[in-house]
Amino acid sequence: MPSLAFIGLGLYDERGISLHGLEIAKSADIVLLENYTNVMPGLDLESLGRMIGKEIRLVDRSEVEDGRWILDAAAHREVALLVAGDPFVATTHVDLRLRAIKRGIRVEVVNAPSIISVAPGAAGLQNYKFGRSATITFPEPLSLVPYETLKINRSLGLHTLFFLDLRVEEGRFMKAGEAIRLLLEMEAQQRGGVVSGDTLMVVLARAGSPSQLVRAGKASVLKDLDFGPPPHSLIVPGRLHFMEAEALVLIGGAEEGLVRGCL
Amino acid sequence: MPSLAFIGLGLYDERGISLHGLEIAKSADIVLLENYTNVMPGLDLESLGRMIGKEIRLVDRSEVEDGRWILDAAAHREVALLVAGDPFVATTHVDLRLRAIKRGIRVEVVNAPSIISVAPGAAGLQNYKFGRSATITFPEPLSLVPYETLKINRSLGLHTLFFLDLRVEEGRFMKAGEAIRLLLEMEAQQRGGVVSGDTLMVVLARAGSPSQLVRAGKASVLKDLDFGPPPHSLIVPGRLHFMEAEALVLIGGAEEGLVRGCL
Repeated sequence: MPSLAFIGLGLYDERGISLHGLEIAKSADIVLLENYTNVMPGLDLESLGRMIGKEIRLVDRSEVEDGRWILDAAAHREVALLVAGDPFVATTHVDLRLRAIKRGIRVEVVNAPSIISVAPGAAGLQNYKFGRSATITFPEPLSLVPYETLKINRSLGLHTLFFLDLRVEEGRFMKAGEAIRLLLEMEAQQRGGVVSGDTLMVVLARAGSPSQLVRAGKASVLKDLDFGPPPHSLIVPGRLHFMEAEALVLIGGAEEGLVRGCL
Repeated sequence: MPSLAFIGLGLYDERGISLHGLEIAKSADIVLLENYTNVMPGLDLESLGRMIGKEIRLVDRSEVEDGRWILDAAAHREVALLVAGDPFVATTHVDLRLRAIKRGIRVEVVNAPSIISVAPGAAGLQNYKFGRSATITFPEPLSLVPYETLKINRSLGLHTLFFLDLRVEEGRFMKAGEAIRLLLEMEAQQRGGVVSGDTLMVVLARAGSPSQLVRAGKASVLKDLDFGPPPHSLIVPGRLHFMEAEALVLIGGAEEGLVRGCL
């Protein structure tokens, strides 16, 4: 039956696909992969193709945004669109899904881990203590949205998860150090008393991968460290539960004195 | 090598496990499943056991909380602990992981979809527009935490995701209608002007499953509807982006006039 299936691949490599997702991809007529592979540090396209047993056609972001030929194909064939992370975290995919519904095309969804749910757990922090999240973008020009978001969350004692800008097609990924420096720059401009070099922060590099790295410490220290290949994300904790504090010490290598100040 | 692997199964059935998770479970000496199967409406334990190729031992919540024999086993053997959803959304698993680290036991993690990332996308809402989430618990006695959370989020124009109480061992699951009635009861008590019968709400039933249901409408209407078997969750949207409004009409069957009032 003609359909458009959105299949999440998770955060690391081709083995992040679920058995259900693999089943659907195997039976599809056309298998597309959004060319976002750099975001999944371990993805081996050939291996994925062998698993699925058919050729995978790469599509770039603009083809997904335009969507026309994908929807035309899905009106007559079974189309599987493989995407990094979970399918509906990106607005583009929600848009494509709505357009499919409007055209009467059957839509299937296979979920997968997303940085949104993985990041808090990776750091040992509790999900329900996170406020709104935000993206720290390259300063062209500097956007203050992350700072304003952090200000509100911190006033409420909540944690903040920051996604870091990625421009896959340009091969540019913001590193955690740059993100921290940008937050400190925003503070220097705005003087809202939201962050300082002494603020406890948590860097996550390659979340959900075997080389996942969690490092908790002072902003002034973390901003100059190298956390290796992307993707990176950043958490600025609010008030900590004692188990969260313990996690940041055991998992993130934070100094006890530093986390104790956030209890 | 002795280790404790936390393997997420996702939200619906045994095919929610990733290929990576299945690999680890197959090679483990001992495979445990947290007895939370009711939360995964389609889980077939026999089928899961056949896929993994070994006997699965059920463990209940209290054994995981206590954790002693699991850690003792993981100190000498490869232990795989299968859990519903993503492993580290539950505090119990974070605690077990920290205790494993303290004992020098190697920990592996295989992530899976969680209601936290799936719910917003299922409803076509944007993740970064959610504030803090909360759990609506059975009124024994009535907890006002969900109401206070909603009050803050709504004042900021943010969406709120509510998890609904589940007491797996008692076989009790809160239904969306009850959750809505409880929010209205809190409003009647507190008179904070946070919600009314006219407030737009979104019910999600069996998120991530083939029978997933998304229904958007007025609280006064939704509170009396039957959304079928659990699990249910509830979203109270804040200000809507036009694409979110469109999604609630197309996916959730909301009236156009109702969502237009939230733009």
